[in-house]
Amino acid sequence: MTLVKDIKWIKGKKITDLVKDLSSCGFQGVELGKATECIIKMKREKAKIYLTFTSNMATSGLRGFFAQLIELGMVDTLITTVGSVEEDIMKAIGEDFIIGSYSADDVASHEKGMNRVGNLFIKNESYEKFEAYIKDVLKKLYEKKNRYSVSELLREIGLMLNNENSILYQAAKKNVPIFCPAITDGAFGFHLFLFQQDHQDFMIDVVKDFSNLIFSSTHDDKKGIIALGGGVSKHHAILGTLINGGADYAVYMTTAREYSGSMSGATTREAKSWGKIKDNADAVTVIGDVSVFFPLTMMAALDVLSEEELIK
Amino acid sequence: MTLVKDIKWIKGKKITDLVKDLSSCGFQGVELGKATECIIKMKREKAKIYLTFTSNMATSGLRGFFAQLIELGMVDTLITTVGSVEEDIMKAIGEDFIIGSYSADDVASHEKGMNRVGNLFIKNESYEKFEAYIKDVLKKLYEKKNRYSVSELLREIGLMLNNENSILYQAAKKNVPIFCPAITDGAFGFHLFLFQQDHQDFMIDVVKDFSNLIFSSTHDDKKGIIALGGGVSKHHAILGTLINGGADYAVYMTTAREYSGSMSGATTREAKSWGKIKDNADAVTVIGDVSVFFPLTMMAALDVLSEEELIK
Amino acid sequence: MTLVKDIKWIKGKKITDLVKDLSSCGFQGVELGKATECIIKMKREKAKIYLTFTSNMATSGLRGFFAQLIELGMVDTLITTVGSVEEDIMKAIGEDFIIGSYSADDVASHEKGMNRVGNLFIKNESYEKFEAYIKDVLKKLYEKKNRYSVSELLREIGLMLNNENSILYQAAKKNVPIFCPAITDGAFGFHLFLFQQDHQDFMIDVVKDFSNLIFSSTHDDKKGIIALGGGVSKHHAILGTLINGGADYAVYMTTAREYSGSMSGATTREAKSWGKIKDNADAVTVIGDVSVFFPLTMMAALDVLSEEELIK
Amino acid sequence: MTLVKDIKWIKGKKITDLVKDLSSCGFQGVELGKATECIIKMKREKAKIYLTFTSNMATSGLRGFFAQLIELGMVDTLITTVGSVEEDIMKAIGEDFIIGSYSADDVASHEKGMNRVGNLFIKNESYEKFEAYIKDVLKKLYEKKNRYSVSELLREIGLMLNNENSILYQAAKKNVPIFCPAITDGAFGFHLFLFQQDHQDFMIDVVKDFSNLIFSSTHDDKKGIIALGGGVSKHHAILGTLINGGADYAVYMTTAREYSGSMSGATTREAKSWGKIKDNADAVTVIGDVSVFFPLTMMAALDVLSEEELIK
Repeated sequence: MTLVKDIKWIKGKKITDLVKDLSSCGFQGVELGKATECIIKMKREKAKIYLTFTSNMATSGLRGFFAQLIELGMVDTLITTVGSVEEDIMKAIGEDFIIGSYSADDVASHEKGMNRVGNLFIKNESYEKFEAYIKDVLKKLYEKKNRYSVSELLREIGLMLNNENSILYQAAKKNVPIFCPAITDGAFGFHLFLFQQDHQDFMIDVVKDFSNLIFSSTHDDKKGIIALGGGVSKHHAILGTLINGGADYAVYMTTAREYSGSMSGATTREAKSWGKIKDNADAVTVIGDVSVFFPLTMMAALDVLSEEELIK
Repeated sequence: MTLVKDIKWIKGKKITDLVKDLSSCGFQGVELGKATECIIKMKREKAKIYLTFTSNMATSGLRGFFAQLIELGMVDTLITTVGSVEEDIMKAIGEDFIIGSYSADDVASHEKGMNRVGNLFIKNESYEKFEAYIKDVLKKLYEKKNRYSVSELLREIGLMLNNENSILYQAAKKNVPIFCPAITDGAFGFHLFLFQQDHQDFMIDVVKDFSNLIFSSTHDDKKGIIALGGGVSKHHAILGTLINGGADYAVYMTTAREYSGSMSGATTREAKSWGKIKDNADAVTVIGDVSVFFPLTMMAALDVLSEEELIK
Repeated sequence: MTLVKDIKWIKGKKITDLVKDLSSCGFQGVELGKATECIIKMKREKAKIYLTFTSNMATSGLRGFFAQLIELGMVDTLITTVGSVEEDIMKAIGEDFIIGSYSADDVASHEKGMNRVGNLFIKNESYEKFEAYIKDVLKKLYEKKNRYSVSELLREIGLMLNNENSILYQAAKKNVPIFCPAITDGAFGFHLFLFQQDHQDFMIDVVKDFSNLIFSSTHDDKKGIIALGGGVSKHHAILGTLINGGADYAVYMTTAREYSGSMSGATTREAKSWGKIKDNADAVTVIGDVSVFFPLTMMAALDVLSEEELIK
Repeated sequence: MTLVKDIKWIKGKKITDLVKDLSSCGFQGVELGKATECIIKMKREKAKIYLTFTSNMATSGLRGFFAQLIELGMVDTLITTVGSVEEDIMKAIGEDFIIGSYSADDVASHEKGMNRVGNLFIKNESYEKFEAYIKDVLKKLYEKKNRYSVSELLREIGLMLNNENSILYQAAKKNVPIFCPAITDGAFGFHLFLFQQDHQDFMIDVVKDFSNLIFSSTHDDKKGIIALGGGVSKHHAILGTLINGGADYAVYMTTAREYSGSMSGATTREAKSWGKIKDNADAVTVIGDVSVFFPLTMMAALDVLSEEELIK
């Protein structure tokens, strides 16, 4: 029986100590504390870790943190949407995004070529630079061969980017596959289409990547899911682990509601009815904005794992 | 200047009259009323209508309503996730889903082979029947040819299903393309993979479908989006219209929050900063559970359109 | 075992038929259908019905609907916040509220004397008229006596208003007490304070009203709660029924989340742990915007109750 | 123009550094960073600070943090609901609350006398001890005089509690008034009622407290609001500052949605249309669970304020 404990400020408090406080404070703090514990266990138990996130997170500064997590060996399989790929590349080739406001005048922003993502902005220019870059990349890759699975394609691009903060770069360096099941759903898709117009034999093989997903862990491996936000990325990780017997550890972090019956809002509890997560798994659903909750949760876990020399 | 009007019950009130009441009552009722107006205008102005929804809605009884909307000519392009395809097929081949509870015992449900989707259940058996069916279908389709775009594949399946309430069937009959950019993200994907194991030359061409999406409307067409829920389906419709100059009409209906910066929670206002929706478009964001809000909104629109003989 | 049924539009469909459809369609539609059933049972079983709502609902056109519900005998005890009282009086003395927009320029609105409530506006003038009126009323009431409980005060005001659509008027006419535990929390409170400055012996007795609340039902009465939104109104109804043995029927309708641990977001399930609602009560939590969900739910119930001659 | 910056873990990172990271990371992290800045300014500018919170927060371990904030001189006026008062007293007289689960079996909990508040439990025993204590307190206070405003009553109780972690104790010690406009809405109200049954001349004067609220700051004082959650506490602080010319600083932190038009979900932007917050005020709305967001925000502010010797 854990009792609620009154929390106190002391000057210069560390994240790790705050997370400890929150664990016995109440409400989502308690769940966040459990999530930290769950991530620590994943690593202690050498689970294969599936990290998933939506593209708005790669728009934000979490992008560099994700790259660092890959570098630290905290990710075995990464699943995201094509927006993340595009924005990671933009940043890797020198573009910057801008802090703005949720209540910006959107018509005025449009005229200025500023595309809004919540309280952030991406300039039209950044898209133009991305497009010039990707056109060139596709040409180079086509010279090698004409049929790529998505994860293979992203690995090749990662190898070309030389940027420590890049998700694609770190993933390529560490042999972490990036799955992106809806690869055409973005500016990238448009350029694949344009390229295929001129090179009819150029093929993206999404079905092949399904086998890569399945073989990224085995039935015997312990498996952990860290799903940030919802959508196809979350579901794809679940599917990958389900086929291999279900996850042993799961942290879902989202603002979506379970009451609409959407997969995005579905809890780890619901996942057990499917065998997506094992009946006896260590699983926690945290309801909150990932931009705040995730760094807090994960940095507290990293402090412990570093202490235990489980990360470099 | 519209004034708030007190609303009143009268016995046997019709949906259409309630929606009229709500339009001057306040809060989401006002937005719902605008959404009804917006849909009516789409049709009056002969806009190409893009309907998108997430798979949980196909799990629910909205599935038959979507099929009816296609039949009535209310949909020109349909975009959804693979879960919708799977569940539409299950129902078309005779399976039923069950009303349950959000607080069901999920471990017990797992043992009984009952997979929970919010307050609904899908039996393991329904998946088994689907899998047997799809295996057979893939064989037949492969006999015809070995390379399909997703929309082409779904059209072929739709033609085989003979079920008035089926989304795929009605879409095939009415030549409405169904796009499903992450076709591998489900049991269907698993069977595509198994089939490809034995038939290495069998290819799903997702890039090809991008061109089908683009050519499903022209720059000159008026374009309208009805996006129910978020995710890749919503984004894909936006992308399709963006490339053709942006939507003239848009109704977004969701429970997702804009404050996390996700595309799922992004409003029609945010879309204008991108040119996804034209600056002067008729656009409305309705915050609410689609299972209740959409039938109310759309049925009120259908009553008017039927009166004006704009639907059959 | 209830099966999910595909729903269909037919021209001129009635609310009652839509609610029937939603009951076997899925997600919040199912819960809304249960709420309708629960309200019907409350009335069939002659339960004392506690209706609670927040002041924004009285700002909206639900105000006239609440007045009608009282007139129809659907309410035995009403609990709300002082904003509802103020806005009901404003409308009763001829003021109108205006439909606006969530994204109005708030600084500009301030300059125009337009106070925003979501997508509605209340003019400064309406407050001024209310204040002139209430000043006069307090003088008249003080002539009668100098100590009032809140419900007594509101009843006296109700008797003075001669407006069919007024909540206070209908409640006074039907002897339905209105409790408003935080009576000072608004412009009304300010005028009570000003009046007390000049009449030191003028007292509002909130403690006395607690006894009125308790005696508004007995332990033996069946009791039903319809709580729209959260806050002190919801909690006060719960408290009133708890002291008398707990509610037999409860419908909670809200957009608040249970994950923050707030009473506003607390579900009917949580209420059972307290005995606020009986273990075997008929209780349902509906997650959705009251401005749309409540008229739909209640009007469908009224149609049935009218058919059964349980309302006039 | 602030650019989005990639964030990085370093071992033993401090809260203050994380909040700095979040300020240029994106989404709610940015707003949280602004909230920290806003609180720092309130103190630098010697604003009168109104702190409001809902009772679930006093159930959680934030209670001790609130007490510490009062002790540190961060609060000039405190407004909350009666549940906070009750639970602060329970803890001050030795009761403990328990960490539980959102999905606990509520009927079983009821049988065990465990009342659920989200993922926390309060035992029946704790209520019994509170009730015995409060009965005795009322007797003692009545011996002194028979008419109390609420803030006076709470101050007297605070003086009797000798507990460093108690909100009431610290507030009494520091002469910080506690307003609780709906004082009867809880077990406390029930005991006030019982006491008044036997002592008819015992009066709680809520109207008097309105004057105390108004005079807790002047028109000339700079005024800051920190509103955690919504409800009557938030509104009462707004009302108090509105009457004195509006707030110069405001931080709203909540999970409530603005789309329902409720005051709880109303943003600082909406407040400007009312003059509740000055047109040029420094104001920020943060959407997130207070149990995590508030300690993070406030502890980062305290680190800076301590550095600047603005708190002891």
